[in-house]
Amino acid sequence: MPTRAQRKLWRSLRRRKGRVESGLFLVEGRRLLADLLASDVRVETLLCSRAAGGAGGDVAVAELATRFGQQGAEVAWLSESEFDAVTATVTPQGVAAVARIPRADWESVRGQRILLLDGVQDPGNVGTLIRTGEALGVQIVVCLPGTADPWAPKAVRAAAGSGLRVPLLASGSGEALDRLRALDAELWVADAAGPPVYRGVDRPPGLGLALGSEAHGVSDTLRAQADRIVSIGMVKSVDSLNVAVAGAILIDRIFGDRKEGGPSAP
Amino acid sequence: MPTRAQRKLWRSLRRRKGRVESGLFLVEGRRLLADLLASDVRVETLLCSRAAGGAGGDVAVAELATRFGQQGAEVAWLSESEFDAVTATVTPQGVAAVARIPRADWESVRGQRILLLDGVQDPGNVGTLIRTGEALGVQIVVCLPGTADPWAPKAVRAAAGSGLRVPLLASGSGEALDRLRALDAELWVADAAGPPVYRGVDRPPGLGLALGSEAHGVSDTLRAQADRIVSIGMVKSVDSLNVAVAGAILIDRIFGDRKEGGPSAP
Repeated sequence: MPTRAQRKLWRSLRRRKGRVESGLFLVEGRRLLADLLASDVRVETLLCSRAAGGAGGDVAVAELATRFGQQGAEVAWLSESEFDAVTATVTPQGVAAVARIPRADWESVRGQRILLLDGVQDPGNVGTLIRTGEALGVQIVVCLPGTADPWAPKAVRAAAGSGLRVPLLASGSGEALDRLRALDAELWVADAAGPPVYRGVDRPPGLGLALGSEAHGVSDTLRAQADRIVSIGMVKSVDSLNVAVAGAILIDRIFGDRKEGGPSAP
Repeated sequence: MPTRAQRKLWRSLRRRKGRVESGLFLVEGRRLLADLLASDVRVETLLCSRAAGGAGGDVAVAELATRFGQQGAEVAWLSESEFDAVTATVTPQGVAAVARIPRADWESVRGQRILLLDGVQDPGNVGTLIRTGEALGVQIVVCLPGTADPWAPKAVRAAAGSGLRVPLLASGSGEALDRLRALDAELWVADAAGPPVYRGVDRPPGLGLALGSEAHGVSDTLRAQADRIVSIGMVKSVDSLNVAVAGAILIDRIFGDRKEGGPSAP
């Protein structure tokens, strides 16, 4: 039986404060749990709804309980109402994991393709950008101040497993600028007012691409230090795109692989 | 004073049935109303909340009322509760327009860059794809069966004005295939299992790009008739992307303009 303190801890993970204090986050949905099993992320507790996975219940939940148990996670069986009180999704699937937030830090950054999110407030957009970044070869994602917590349930869901594989780190803007310089990486800043950048652009080996919010763009602090300002270049009638879409296009043009004859293809 | 029948009509526009029967749709938010003023879309009625725009109220609402009135729209002042009963947004801005759905049909299609949405169920994704399409040069968007109504409030909002400028048409799959042939346009179908396509690909002058749902992809009917199957090409750990993101990347690679030296640049 989970203790009162455990249940309180699990419920706290829906809010940033609870995640920061405990260093834990929630993973919900069976697809994501399969990604979690295959990842290096440490799972503390698997929460199972007795309604979904008890005797005569859903085989998949029982199987997940066995597999996470074999990896050393505690397995807690909750009543349906206890389970619903912990999980954040509208349609919980009867199973969720309490996992330890992987700690990436600048010391461990070896990646040469860095994505910086500066004030991207919507957790769905943050998750989508992490997913897109991984798909197109981004090696590390840095969340600067004002950016939604990538460990919020909505961000974890939108990242669709990519947050479990791509190193994510939180950083102040000043520190990020210092670290980019130390890594000998350029800083490119996305801004609709800048000149368009196209696939095949001459990309330095170390590069951080900074994306800002749809409403305010990248902060002045970063913009002032940019080696290059880049935009998508659009028809005149459209003055902006959703940040997850604009980011995807820029990531693809700048970081995407260059098979089949972009001008800079090897 | 609006009649009971008028109020019933306006409320019906939140649902597809009401829009189909009346040929009308709702435009909410001041930014979109400015786009609407500048567009060719005919506005029947401007709905203003007396709370927002009455004597001593918000100047912007009164100004919109004047400008839409000059364009021949009826202006209806509603009580706050009447207004809230009609509008669909969580944070209405005290003003909304009832506009006539612009009727695009295949006869009027002259565009050579055609985007087909096949079973894209989420209205937010449909709107985002229309917006991205316009930004990158798509000339017409065709909504095939199973695709969310582009005139639903959530789609109109996500399209951010692009739905007021890009011709949108609804079509059956068989008809779309016939029309593409008649227009001498190729059909390219997005499918994660296909070979990657990159910027600079040899694109025929007339081209329809079909995007399907995240879960099921493009229908077998279309896939069977495809001149080419295309994908993004991603790192192995990622097996899919959000459809609005994947669509944006493909639209950019295939339809995007080719300044600064893609191999097929003129």
